[in-house]
Amino acid sequence: MNLKESLEIKKQFVDNELDKIIPDETSYPGILFKSMRYSVFAGGKRLRPVMALAACEIFDEDISKAMPFACALEMIHTYSLIHDDLPALDDDNFRRGRLTNHKAFGENIAILAGDGLLSYAFEVMANAVAKNPSAANAKALQAVAFAAGVNGMVAGQALDVVSEGKPLTKQQLDFININKTAAMIVGSVKAGAYAAGAEEKDVDILEKAAIKLGLAFQIQDDILDVVGTFEDLGKAIHSDEKNEKTTYVTLFGLERCKEIVETLSNEAIELFSHFGEKAEFFVELTKYLVDRKS
Amino acid sequence: MNLKESLEIKKQFVDNELDKIIPDETSYPGILFKSMRYSVFAGGKRLRPVMALAACEIFDEDISKAMPFACALEMIHTYSLIHDDLPALDDDNFRRGRLTNHKAFGENIAILAGDGLLSYAFEVMANAVAKNPSAANAKALQAVAFAAGVNGMVAGQALDVVSEGKPLTKQQLDFININKTAAMIVGSVKAGAYAAGAEEKDVDILEKAAIKLGLAFQIQDDILDVVGTFEDLGKAIHSDEKNEKTTYVTLFGLERCKEIVETLSNEAIELFSHFGEKAEFFVELTKYLVDRKS
Repeated sequence: MNLKESLEIKKQFVDNELDKIIPDETSYPGILFKSMRYSVFAGGKRLRPVMALAACEIFDEDISKAMPFACALEMIHTYSLIHDDLPALDDDNFRRGRLTNHKAFGENIAILAGDGLLSYAFEVMANAVAKNPSAANAKALQAVAFAAGVNGMVAGQALDVVSEGKPLTKQQLDFININKTAAMIVGSVKAGAYAAGAEEKDVDILEKAAIKLGLAFQIQDDILDVVGTFEDLGKAIHSDEKNEKTTYVTLFGLERCKEIVETLSNEAIELFSHFGEKAEFFVELTKYLVDRKS
Repeated sequence: MNLKESLEIKKQFVDNELDKIIPDETSYPGILFKSMRYSVFAGGKRLRPVMALAACEIFDEDISKAMPFACALEMIHTYSLIHDDLPALDDDNFRRGRLTNHKAFGENIAILAGDGLLSYAFEVMANAVAKNPSAANAKALQAVAFAAGVNGMVAGQALDVVSEGKPLTKQQLDFININKTAAMIVGSVKAGAYAAGAEEKDVDILEKAAIKLGLAFQIQDDILDVVGTFEDLGKAIHSDEKNEKTTYVTLFGLERCKEIVETLSNEAIELFSHFGEKAEFFVELTKYLVDRKS
């Protein structure tokens, strides 16, 4: 099976489950669920949940073991986008070619839709752990919680926010990239691997690979903000320049960034290759992500 | 030991633990942790965590079993206040006699401090479950997640927000009171009881009592908004009238509300009494809460 087929199958699997577990607007109060679903079903790539399922698959064919954590990762990712887009933060009007959540539903509902998705992500994982309180499930939950929290995504976001308009050092930028972007990629592969019952030594290798992949992914994002188009990306381009953000591109220039992305992705691929054919998906995914246009 | 002593000892126990587990501003980025701690250590009554510890104590003397869940409940309660106070929601400038979080730190950091506290609450519980993946711990986690989420607090908050300025039916108001206020009281006693290994039949009785107590508590809050003082409450009074909010007081008048609070609290006390002397704390607490001035 090639990467695109495998991606599509896993994405469909995640989409079906998300559709099943997130209440629709017939639940009360309808506006809350409508707003949550508006952002969850906005055409995201499902990168994090797909990686969780693929990491699970390295150790266990039954990828449904990772499904609650996969869905939670996507809901957490979505909440972070909704809150990021708010006027008090990035103040973005468009996301994936559509109005951002607060532009469609108002700021009050957007804040609550974010809170709702974050809470529901943990509820879905808590239900999985309560149904089967195994060490594997508990560690998967822990990996997602750590990645999403104040030692992960929220910390990166906080430094990003308070740094806006100020020049950053490479060290500060790395802190943001590692915490805001790479942490959730790391959380995804760790959660999937743990859910499958993987041993710590294997999870450690995956973690190292995922950090490299996450950093490569973020730097590629910065490159696309300069060389991409609104049509391809579905969001405003040159937003980093507009917001006077320090990125790898502003620090090192386009050409050097392309080299860094290639080096990081090669290192990630080498680490993934430790798992042989079973990690073929991650090798191909890494190549795909650093060549993407959106 | 009388109620005040017992409350104070448990509150101190919770305060010490919160102080221990929430990083201070020497952690990076400092502003995030400073802002989180500003609201957590703002002089709250610690009602929810104290109830979790007291519910644990009915079934097991070792109340430390409930501590991660107790701390999580307080952090979740605090995040909900920070987000509630935001300009897009209640737009409050004061809370517990001090500036609200966004007035002290800015809206962007306040949103992230809320997200950080909610995430960290789950991280603390996830760590407890990962350390000891017992059914008891998993069910305690599940109870907190359910209470805080889209079938609990967030749902109540969403209806409250979209109803502002519109008259509510008793049914709608009950939905808000049950979900926005009572759900977290219920989650507190359930989490504490589960953490101690309580059986379902006993948890069910506690749940029924906690709903009554939670409703009585909320209606007493509505009464205090009319008859209380800024000095006693540490926040603006007559805010319901200002915001044209339907409350039990606007629906039924002050005198009828006082009767309803008394009936609910008597019913709660009767249910708590099922556990005899071991639930003396809850009997006294219920009496205290419905007589409070702040």
